[in-house]
Amino acid sequence: MNISMTRTTEKNLMVFSGRAHPELAEQVAAELGTQLVPTEARAFANSEIYVRFEESVRGCDAFVIQSHTAPINEWIMEHLIMVDALKRASAKRITVVMPFYGYARQDKKHRGREPISARLVADLFKTAGADRLMAVDLHTDQIQGFFDGPVDHLMALPILADYVREKYGDEDLVVVSPDAGRIKVAEQWAARLGGAPLAFIHKTRDIDRPNESRANRVVGQVEGRTCILVDDMIDSGGTITHAAEALMRDGASSVVIAATHPILSDPATQRLRDSVAREVVVMDTLPISQDKHFDKLTVLPIAPLLSTAIREVFEDGSVTSLFGGRA
Amino acid sequence: MNISMTRTTEKNLMVFSGRAHPELAEQVAAELGTQLVPTEARAFANSEIYVRFEESVRGCDAFVIQSHTAPINEWIMEHLIMVDALKRASAKRITVVMPFYGYARQDKKHRGREPISARLVADLFKTAGADRLMAVDLHTDQIQGFFDGPVDHLMALPILADYVREKYGDEDLVVVSPDAGRIKVAEQWAARLGGAPLAFIHKTRDIDRPNESRANRVVGQVEGRTCILVDDMIDSGGTITHAAEALMRDGASSVVIAATHPILSDPATQRLRDSVAREVVVMDTLPISQDKHFDKLTVLPIAPLLSTAIREVFEDGSVTSLFGGRA
Amino acid sequence: MNISMTRTTEKNLMVFSGRAHPELAEQVAAELGTQLVPTEARAFANSEIYVRFEESVRGCDAFVIQSHTAPINEWIMEHLIMVDALKRASAKRITVVMPFYGYARQDKKHRGREPISARLVADLFKTAGADRLMAVDLHTDQIQGFFDGPVDHLMALPILADYVREKYGDEDLVVVSPDAGRIKVAEQWAARLGGAPLAFIHKTRDIDRPNESRANRVVGQVEGRTCILVDDMIDSGGTITHAAEALMRDGASSVVIAATHPILSDPATQRLRDSVAREVVVMDTLPISQDKHFDKLTVLPIAPLLSTAIREVFEDGSVTSLFGGRA
Amino acid sequence: MNISMTRTTEKNLMVFSGRAHPELAEQVAAELGTQLVPTEARAFANSEIYVRFEESVRGCDAFVIQSHTAPINEWIMEHLIMVDALKRASAKRITVVMPFYGYARQDKKHRGREPISARLVADLFKTAGADRLMAVDLHTDQIQGFFDGPVDHLMALPILADYVREKYGDEDLVVVSPDAGRIKVAEQWAARLGGAPLAFIHKTRDIDRPNESRANRVVGQVEGRTCILVDDMIDSGGTITHAAEALMRDGASSVVIAATHPILSDPATQRLRDSVAREVVVMDTLPISQDKHFDKLTVLPIAPLLSTAIREVFEDGSVTSLFGGRA
Amino acid sequence: MNISMTRTTEKNLMVFSGRAHPELAEQVAAELGTQLVPTEARAFANSEIYVRFEESVRGCDAFVIQSHTAPINEWIMEHLIMVDALKRASAKRITVVMPFYGYARQDKKHRGREPISARLVADLFKTAGADRLMAVDLHTDQIQGFFDGPVDHLMALPILADYVREKYGDEDLVVVSPDAGRIKVAEQWAARLGGAPLAFIHKTRDIDRPNESRANRVVGQVEGRTCILVDDMIDSGGTITHAAEALMRDGASSVVIAATHPILSDPATQRLRDSVAREVVVMDTLPISQDKHFDKLTVLPIAPLLSTAIREVFEDGSVTSLFGGRA
Amino acid sequence: MNISMTRTTEKNLMVFSGRAHPELAEQVAAELGTQLVPTEARAFANSEIYVRFEESVRGCDAFVIQSHTAPINEWIMEHLIMVDALKRASAKRITVVMPFYGYARQDKKHRGREPISARLVADLFKTAGADRLMAVDLHTDQIQGFFDGPVDHLMALPILADYVREKYGDEDLVVVSPDAGRIKVAEQWAARLGGAPLAFIHKTRDIDRPNESRANRVVGQVEGRTCILVDDMIDSGGTITHAAEALMRDGASSVVIAATHPILSDPATQRLRDSVAREVVVMDTLPISQDKHFDKLTVLPIAPLLSTAIREVFEDGSVTSLFGGRA
Repeated sequence: MNISMTRTTEKNLMVFSGRAHPELAEQVAAELGTQLVPTEARAFANSEIYVRFEESVRGCDAFVIQSHTAPINEWIMEHLIMVDALKRASAKRITVVMPFYGYARQDKKHRGREPISARLVADLFKTAGADRLMAVDLHTDQIQGFFDGPVDHLMALPILADYVREKYGDEDLVVVSPDAGRIKVAEQWAARLGGAPLAFIHKTRDIDRPNESRANRVVGQVEGRTCILVDDMIDSGGTITHAAEALMRDGASSVVIAATHPILSDPATQRLRDSVAREVVVMDTLPISQDKHFDKLTVLPIAPLLSTAIREVFEDGSVTSLFGGRA
Repeated sequence: MNISMTRTTEKNLMVFSGRAHPELAEQVAAELGTQLVPTEARAFANSEIYVRFEESVRGCDAFVIQSHTAPINEWIMEHLIMVDALKRASAKRITVVMPFYGYARQDKKHRGREPISARLVADLFKTAGADRLMAVDLHTDQIQGFFDGPVDHLMALPILADYVREKYGDEDLVVVSPDAGRIKVAEQWAARLGGAPLAFIHKTRDIDRPNESRANRVVGQVEGRTCILVDDMIDSGGTITHAAEALMRDGASSVVIAATHPILSDPATQRLRDSVAREVVVMDTLPISQDKHFDKLTVLPIAPLLSTAIREVFEDGSVTSLFGGRA
Repeated sequence: MNISMTRTTEKNLMVFSGRAHPELAEQVAAELGTQLVPTEARAFANSEIYVRFEESVRGCDAFVIQSHTAPINEWIMEHLIMVDALKRASAKRITVVMPFYGYARQDKKHRGREPISARLVADLFKTAGADRLMAVDLHTDQIQGFFDGPVDHLMALPILADYVREKYGDEDLVVVSPDAGRIKVAEQWAARLGGAPLAFIHKTRDIDRPNESRANRVVGQVEGRTCILVDDMIDSGGTITHAAEALMRDGASSVVIAATHPILSDPATQRLRDSVAREVVVMDTLPISQDKHFDKLTVLPIAPLLSTAIREVFEDGSVTSLFGGRA
Repeated sequence: MNISMTRTTEKNLMVFSGRAHPELAEQVAAELGTQLVPTEARAFANSEIYVRFEESVRGCDAFVIQSHTAPINEWIMEHLIMVDALKRASAKRITVVMPFYGYARQDKKHRGREPISARLVADLFKTAGADRLMAVDLHTDQIQGFFDGPVDHLMALPILADYVREKYGDEDLVVVSPDAGRIKVAEQWAARLGGAPLAFIHKTRDIDRPNESRANRVVGQVEGRTCILVDDMIDSGGTITHAAEALMRDGASSVVIAATHPILSDPATQRLRDSVAREVVVMDTLPISQDKHFDKLTVLPIAPLLSTAIREVFEDGSVTSLFGGRA
Repeated sequence: MNISMTRTTEKNLMVFSGRAHPELAEQVAAELGTQLVPTEARAFANSEIYVRFEESVRGCDAFVIQSHTAPINEWIMEHLIMVDALKRASAKRITVVMPFYGYARQDKKHRGREPISARLVADLFKTAGADRLMAVDLHTDQIQGFFDGPVDHLMALPILADYVREKYGDEDLVVVSPDAGRIKVAEQWAARLGGAPLAFIHKTRDIDRPNESRANRVVGQVEGRTCILVDDMIDSGGTITHAAEALMRDGASSVVIAATHPILSDPATQRLRDSVAREVVVMDTLPISQDKHFDKLTVLPIAPLLSTAIREVFEDGSVTSLFGGRA
Repeated sequence: MNISMTRTTEKNLMVFSGRAHPELAEQVAAELGTQLVPTEARAFANSEIYVRFEESVRGCDAFVIQSHTAPINEWIMEHLIMVDALKRASAKRITVVMPFYGYARQDKKHRGREPISARLVADLFKTAGADRLMAVDLHTDQIQGFFDGPVDHLMALPILADYVREKYGDEDLVVVSPDAGRIKVAEQWAARLGGAPLAFIHKTRDIDRPNESRANRVVGQVEGRTCILVDDMIDSGGTITHAAEALMRDGASSVVIAATHPILSDPATQRLRDSVAREVVVMDTLPISQDKHFDKLTVLPIAPLLSTAIREVFEDGSVTSLFGGRA
């Protein structure tokens, strides 16, 4: 008789979904040729969330998908509770998949006595038991450094840009950033669109009325061109629709808006629908309810990107190679 | 010239409040002879919370009050974000004050693959930067052990019991637990009410229909007595009002309900108002909106207890001595 | 030539035992079809403990069994030292198996300035290097939340209850809790015994002599019935034998005592042997020395439960499914 | 006799300096009216660093100043070793003062399999024992979130901008960013200079030769204006001098370069001296050796800002209020 | 009304003692002009330890004294439990005072699969809540590095050496190490005794019988001299008494044994009493029961050293200066 | 369709090298039948280090080799940065291989206010992401306890001793320690050389001139013998060459120097070349530049030992068994 028992080890991938955007998680699971782990999740009368997995998860390689859409604190707490349950049920590795990373914009202190909520979110997931994070188009790249462990930073930009190139590639394009702080992303778009020129919107302020922005001034040549107005997210849509108007005022022939994350807080849908934009292209990293849709909105699927990345992580392949060396 | 600069040290107490129950925090601050630190707190369009303190908090002894009422995940996240902001703004010590500790009932795994959310909440506050916790009448005493640091466990039971004794002390009392799991608390009530007898409600199940509880059976003598039906919280009120009915059926002369935390999820108010109970006594550890009030509801203030405890913590006095040696 | 060397991975289970209760560990190993890892363990002259494993443990899935029997601090320290040695010798995963979890009763602060030793014990094992805990019938379920990681909470209650049902099932049974705080467990027994009625012993105090308990009052109907007096452990046996006497005084036809953990501190054996109890049934989670045995004591083996759970953990099966969904 | 001994507490500030830039630390100490703590610091024959403080530091509020100049790894290790020595010698609080934060530019993964060295540096200081960080003009604001604790982020921009305004305020100014990624900082300059217009240098690439940047294209109106070319640091000076040339080519009347951190790696001095720039203005956050100086270089002192911030931290005042609400 | 309440801070020192060696703790408290904090400490029937402090300890600067004497695991667990109780009762700083540091000899792995128990002990105290350690004459200096925080390493050697010099200084002395591994300590003794010569005992082994040591060979000149045989501790006394015999065999005129820690495990007392030693001098860092005393044993008090060090730590003075710069 | 995807797991070993001593790492990889992972590593103009792996490392078992030679802080930082990059790129396990462990001599506080840099180094690697350490002939065994995890402590002594025995075994040998503190190591040599006698060099000081060592006094019989003068490292070579001279003065027939780590700081080569030593034998744990070589220097390869140990760790074999039970 021996002093040890031996087994060849196997690993098994399981995909979990919170209640924020189950359709997306189902698509991801389907792309992987599997199904979501049946999960009981509900709120008690006093709004506390309860979660329980209905199958054994012991030893699994867990991928837990939750889009941080409104009510965002609800879904983050549910996400954390799911991770806690997986940790206590002996999942072997827990990857938190956030198609949209909540609180990503609160990534620094603008003024004293502010939180850095994007770091807090990373730490909360670590505490709950997350081993790694996967996210799409983070608001700033530095957020990768907020988590103490591996972060797979996926890029939807190539998907969006390829769509735009295919549809508008024959026109005379210019890539426009709606804001001085995001010109770097516009540069990546420009490169992806074969070296298109660049422009941006500069907001200036009247010295006498510092709390009002005086004007949206377009910097760069847009006259007669198709403007690809790019951003990482569309929240209530004010900035981007004003930018589109400024571009048209400056003689742009048309404006196409492209952004990864369709937050679409009110009144974004109304603003975009009524805007001068010719088309609005987004990914489905966040759920878009029926009443938020409008004619010129195009939604591209993020599930293929997520499922490929999950498969690579599971099989210890290279996520980087998939996304142009950047992950 | 010397190699060091010297100052006598001072400590200064500051009280902060989230948006869940500001009236309570204001009462606490007033009892302490101070004011809440002015704080900007609001939700962005996509429901992310933003917090900023409007005064310097560097070096302060911070007490951050938030009642974990519905929407509970909202208020817990706000509470965490406030703690993060205090940590980054160099508060010297951060005490998280939870008149009601959210998720306290999820303190164990009933079945496999469940979270232990009460432990998760303790860990999240630790991660955010909390040095200590203060809470009132925890669902189980073991929750104190979930936090890695000092916990001030305050007891409202004496306040409730003294009110009951003063009002009903001349009657023939019996203390009743609505549930087999909480008889220990009923014992403390009985002791505080001068050795009153004890009873409890036993729910039995029909073997043939295990998912239905067959009956609320009263164990103990209640006939002709004034029943003090005690619990730590009233959520949707079903258990406690059924218990009250069972007591009346068994011949109780009247039933007074006493509980610390008035969660009062729907339809608690309707149930309690329409119930056989003669009076319902609770503390204001959670806000009770105007439409939740009803005639026979009595609300006792928790602010004096909280403010005394905060003062003792600040001055390194003994919280234990205040509350009968139990803290 | 390649930049990496590849091997299919295997996992191998190894079982280790401290000196507190080696017979139990040997039975567990035998049930698993393996043997205990040869280990040198002894005390130096000044009572410091020395441990060394005599085989390579590198990469193994280690299960370290120690019953926390008296001298309990000795065995806890030995347990910790074994975990430290495994960590430093590169065991891949370390599961601490505690048939009886020492200090489980010190799970809260009854009064100020007390430790919460049950949490301390969990933290000490975490610090030493434990990845997970396995324990049988914890004093309170909340102790699971004291460990920051997975806890396998095994239940011996079904084994004990099945034995009782088989032997006494034809009689007219009533399940009795010796104490108000443990009625929940009695409810589980009652359910397992097909819906048997419930009773409990209520200790009241004389107001004039608060330090003495006045009486053991039986609450519930026991007359003419076979009482199954249940508890999680029998320490010095005072409470349970007094309870048995009270039951007989109230007309019980006989009393059978059933408890998981036979601590049997002096004078438990004498008390139980001389008691009115008809039989005393326990598990062998703790060693029972020869001189502690007595005629009416029945000891059921815990090794089958432990070995099944260990096998499930090793093979990533579901412990929950084994024990009625509760783990 | 009592069970405790009581003393009024005092705090005492002590300033420590590594060997990278002692002149700066001496100025800071002098501004604070104190002296550097005498410290033995040297390298052994094999280049290991040895540090020892020559006065007791027990209980002190320590501020440890080191500029992360070349050889940067040497000075970071010395900085870490000093913090370790302070921790072990019982300093009460340790603030790491980094006038220039080494590795700040490695704040994200550009491609797969890169480190995030700026986060690593924050974690190394935390591990060594740092309680807080103080730094000047971080490369990106997000670095504040890399440290798990308070960070005082001081801004030299107002000092530089006030100098520029006083000297060149009468001319027709335009603020220029040398790079698309730093336009946000240029916006702050523009605001500080009374609403000056903005421009930036856009580097485009030839599609056929992607590894070469084709041109430095000026975006915005610079003709006939005095360009204030701003950046957070000047390393080898290539980017900024090429930008200056491009501005002159586009008709700028003159170019003034302003940057906080004078890294001045070779051949920066030669490039700047020979450049078209009219003046180069920097802070002395890094030491500038005699041979790196050149005629048109102006160096402004950072010591007043550091000493004021240190005093505020020591006295629990508001660093934010000093620096326009941003810290 | 203001937003903060202010108080001048005070610190108060409190001294606590476990049950291992209360006389020593009482002497330390007396030297400090205070008294031990009244503490309830006892073992339950099953040998679990229970501790509770009878006075408020909130905010105190706690010094917790326990000698790690046999039964050593008992006293270490009690020490840990006391620290846990202090942490949970809000002591401000907790210094663990170990006149003798248990498990100090297990400070490395001699062979594979051994623990490093001295590191484990340091980590256990950190986990329980210790902020700093104080110990006397550690077995190796490296143990200071096992604790993640300040360690006050006090030296009794000067006290012992001064006693020896005063009593035997007129004789012709030689300092002898009983073992090749401790010659460094003998060198310190030699220096303290004015440059006395050095010798040591070398144990050689017969190649044919490797498990037996062949002989205790004296290296160095001892003939006609008074040998001061020095060690850090005397455990069962075998090594040191054999060394003394070897010295007498080699012509020493007499042998005086001096060691800091009198562990005196059986049969140390008998061996020392019956040995050739002229006097045995030790400190009272460990309790020496009445039956362990013998005529030629001299016990010097450690309390003055401990109390001075505690006072210095409390008052932020320099422990180093007291003990010759080494701490 | 199933709820999980399953794969048999594999592990793959990858060897990485910093720039300090790439030849050694190449030899190790070659012995393992693999190649170093192609890695881009360089310094930026301001001396910051940049590292990037050119192949996917996801899921690998990484061994990262760096000799801590001068400039030691450079190489330690590079080592840390490589570990950080591996952690963020999802290596499964990271073993830090240090043929020579930098700062090993700073393993304790000799005096107050010193760092314990050897512990700091262990903690820095832990923070960066190291799971385990592998090192050769640590300065003191206790350093193993500085790392919170497994440490493989390899011994080159047998390799050196076997070389010496083969070459000089026929002569009349004596093993000599150059210093009182390292006689333990000399004892191991003596045992390995078949029970050779022992001697050591004792440095005494003149009472009147305490800062000068008076003499190197040889303790033990060396006359007419071949002295094997052993140490763990040769730094600047002063101590060891003076020891060799003292041995010759005392009549030794010849002196052979053997040490593991050839630090060889200036003027070690000159001293050793000009010394009385007949041969100097070292391992190549550190690189020896061409100009440091000299005729009587013999360098033995450490790569076979490292590669065997790495293979055993990868395959979960026993490192201990390879190296005489000590690891």
